[in-house]
Amino acid sequence: MIMSHLIDNLEKHFPQDFDEGQKAKAKTLFYKRLSLFAHDFYRGKMITLPKVPIESLNWFNAWYTPGVSAVSTTIRDDNDRSFRLSNRANLVAVVSDSTRVLGDGDCTPPGGLGVMEGKALLMKYLGGIDASALCIDSRDENGIHQAQKIIDFVKMVQPSFGAVNLEDISQPNCFRVLDELREACDIPVWHDDAQGTACVTLSGVLNALKIVGKRLDSVRIVLYGAGAANSSIARLMIQDGAKPENIVMFDKDGTLHKNRVDYEKDTRFYPQWKLCQITNPQCITTEEEAFKGADILVALSHPGPDTIKPEWISLMAEKAIVFACANPVPEIYPHAAKAAGAYIVATGRGDFPNQVNNSVCFPSILKGTLLVSSRKITDEMAVCAAHAIADFAERQGISADHIMPTMMDSDLFPTVAAAVGECAVNAGLARHPLDRTTIYNLAKRDIDEVHHAMDLLVGEGLIQQFPEAEVKRILEEVVTTIRG
Amino acid sequence: MIMSHLIDNLEKHFPQDFDEGQKAKAKTLFYKRLSLFAHDFYRGKMITLPKVPIESLNWFNAWYTPGVSAVSTTIRDDNDRSFRLSNRANLVAVVSDSTRVLGDGDCTPPGGLGVMEGKALLMKYLGGIDASALCIDSRDENGIHQAQKIIDFVKMVQPSFGAVNLEDISQPNCFRVLDELREACDIPVWHDDAQGTACVTLSGVLNALKIVGKRLDSVRIVLYGAGAANSSIARLMIQDGAKPENIVMFDKDGTLHKNRVDYEKDTRFYPQWKLCQITNPQCITTEEEAFKGADILVALSHPGPDTIKPEWISLMAEKAIVFACANPVPEIYPHAAKAAGAYIVATGRGDFPNQVNNSVCFPSILKGTLLVSSRKITDEMAVCAAHAIADFAERQGISADHIMPTMMDSDLFPTVAAAVGECAVNAGLARHPLDRTTIYNLAKRDIDEVHHAMDLLVGEGLIQQFPEAEVKRILEEVVTTIRG
Repeated sequence: MIMSHLIDNLEKHFPQDFDEGQKAKAKTLFYKRLSLFAHDFYRGKMITLPKVPIESLNWFNAWYTPGVSAVSTTIRDDNDRSFRLSNRANLVAVVSDSTRVLGDGDCTPPGGLGVMEGKALLMKYLGGIDASALCIDSRDENGIHQAQKIIDFVKMVQPSFGAVNLEDISQPNCFRVLDELREACDIPVWHDDAQGTACVTLSGVLNALKIVGKRLDSVRIVLYGAGAANSSIARLMIQDGAKPENIVMFDKDGTLHKNRVDYEKDTRFYPQWKLCQITNPQCITTEEEAFKGADILVALSHPGPDTIKPEWISLMAEKAIVFACANPVPEIYPHAAKAAGAYIVATGRGDFPNQVNNSVCFPSILKGTLLVSSRKITDEMAVCAAHAIADFAERQGISADHIMPTMMDSDLFPTVAAAVGECAVNAGLARHPLDRTTIYNLAKRDIDEVHHAMDLLVGEGLIQQFPEAEVKRILEEVVTTIRG
Repeated sequence: MIMSHLIDNLEKHFPQDFDEGQKAKAKTLFYKRLSLFAHDFYRGKMITLPKVPIESLNWFNAWYTPGVSAVSTTIRDDNDRSFRLSNRANLVAVVSDSTRVLGDGDCTPPGGLGVMEGKALLMKYLGGIDASALCIDSRDENGIHQAQKIIDFVKMVQPSFGAVNLEDISQPNCFRVLDELREACDIPVWHDDAQGTACVTLSGVLNALKIVGKRLDSVRIVLYGAGAANSSIARLMIQDGAKPENIVMFDKDGTLHKNRVDYEKDTRFYPQWKLCQITNPQCITTEEEAFKGADILVALSHPGPDTIKPEWISLMAEKAIVFACANPVPEIYPHAAKAAGAYIVATGRGDFPNQVNNSVCFPSILKGTLLVSSRKITDEMAVCAAHAIADFAERQGISADHIMPTMMDSDLFPTVAAAVGECAVNAGLARHPLDRTTIYNLAKRDIDEVHHAMDLLVGEGLIQQFPEAEVKRILEEVVTTIRG
């Protein structure tokens, strides 16, 4: 456990003369090199295993031919039985064309495998969900990434899964892919970069509003950045009561409003055009006008630290709420935002207070959805999850520097799963309706069993311990590199 | 373990007054009902699990963002690194459009899930291979199953896998799908119904020939049935030295020969047309002519028991070898074939001697291929596997009633994997060349670890024991049903 001790106290192991900039660089470099070594050492992160006993080879007569014929014909005659007779009901396809892999852009089709297997790891470890990482080639014969190819692929593969998690698909393809598939598929299709970020951001906003004593339906909101995430945030906020006329959105060309003919003409950006028509009715165009008196800023644009200027923050209303979520560097650093008058600041980073982290959201939303075999994840369910996450944090005690739960809050996941599952049942979307307590108990059991199984496999050496000496070696190399 | 005792001695638990027909019916019905109950009880058969330790949540900084960025960019710059940095190298996509699910025909897309998850179970349990069951919808807008859709799907998904196992795709689509994908893909594409059956059949034929003291390059061969399996058997036999002019093949319309304009015209059946041109040069048309003096019969046509007539067997040469492999009832029963003069008889059934069972073949072929990250599985590798399987059985001692190894021979799998892997290395197809002993050791380790892990999970109740009372109840119900 020494290397975990090292990793859990990484900064203490850097030389004392490292300044903040060197420490930040060293941290990133350390995790990159550790990651590369560790992935090579374990050859990836996920395996499959049977969940059934095989007490003798004669059991293959039931698990396979001839007995399995009864499973084939039963599903043939009622496709919904596949949610009970296969692992489908707990199985998510993590689908990406690897065109926007986290911060690294187009990584070629297999380039997303590390991230998508990581997503499968998070789903299993936090949500008790099985997942397949499917990095696909969406290029046509001319090498152009086609939304239609992703749509066709997911439509073809959906009979094998209980849900689809779209991931790291570049804009504008991601909009049409998500919206067409949400309509066309008979299982939930979730775009975590958009909906997951929106859900967890909303949950943070809800708790921030509780702390400052304001209401979502009366606050003025600036959304800085108009990509997949912020346009979903706008949609979910409006769904939850925010007034569209109180929202001003910015993109790289200024603000969104009804005279933006570029969006009107380029139909691939239809979510933005829709928001042009309902937000910012006064056609405000400058940061100065938009920030003046605004209660909430959600920035999801370019890495900072000077993307959002302190003087804009100073224009905001009292007890201003600032989400600066670009990675790796927020649009404005928390200390700068606070100095300019912000009361609550959230970022995408784990080393500042109030991390906006999708991982507190997607495992539980998907788990609750899967446990009742829901046909969809509606925006209403995403809003329900945001409230459940916010309420969970509130029960634990919230403050300006603690508006969000973290991955450490293991009871969060079954709690939110139960709320989401119940919401699906109430909306009539569940193939297998269950009550809230049952969903909670099943989710908790599944998650606990993953940790139990991993402890067993580590204990018996079937999951090898990470070689301690390598952690130290990598750290030393990183320090040498940073010293230059 | 009582229910396994019951299953392992099933016939003893049938009423003493059951005749053979009733026993056969009862057995099939028992396995079908047990299978349906068991699949529902466990909700399918396979799960995913991490293969890496997570000693603290900070490790997600290496398994996921920000560290995983180094994995993404490394793979982007050299796609082959994905075979080391993800689980891809040990991961097989089991792809089916569920149009020919074992004996049940078109079962609609999710209808094949029980079989494909079963295939994943066999791969893991026998070969230490991870697999995803992908039952896909290959229908176009008119509801017609399109080979092109399956081809496009596999091309799109191949960056995530180390190999593709095609399964239960109906004719003639399966021919083009396999042959195009074998050419187009950068990973091996295997059609187990065709190549797996061909490989294991060839291994049985090779040992039968040893017993009767004949040689493949001088025997006369009748192939009864000209579908995917038998046309692949013809190809592999020829690859291994059989003379095409010594082969006569039958389909539902007679024999294959150079005047079969139907095959010449319908280009979807190009494998058959190719065989028409090289086999049966005398254009023999009747069973009587074809069987006269033939040394080997391989029947893969309609269930019997009277598809192959005893009088045809009587026409064969001395020490005739008969493979009657239709399921569930062979084209001629072994006792009838022997009474008519056959010396060695093999069938597809486990309750007769000499079962031709793909499960002794595909886990090791795929494992050997994966361990060296081979780009292809060539026919030469399949022939190599057939010889390795035959030689393994020979070392254990072969006889007329024991020409083939069984799934019980656990050392078979690493042994054959090593032979196949070495063959790929020698052919220059391996991304990661290893020597034979290393391949053997890695395969054996992986397989042993699966059994070790399952024992642990069963021991801790994480894989629940099957409820014993249900086995008895199902058996009693079956007996009542059969009595009528």
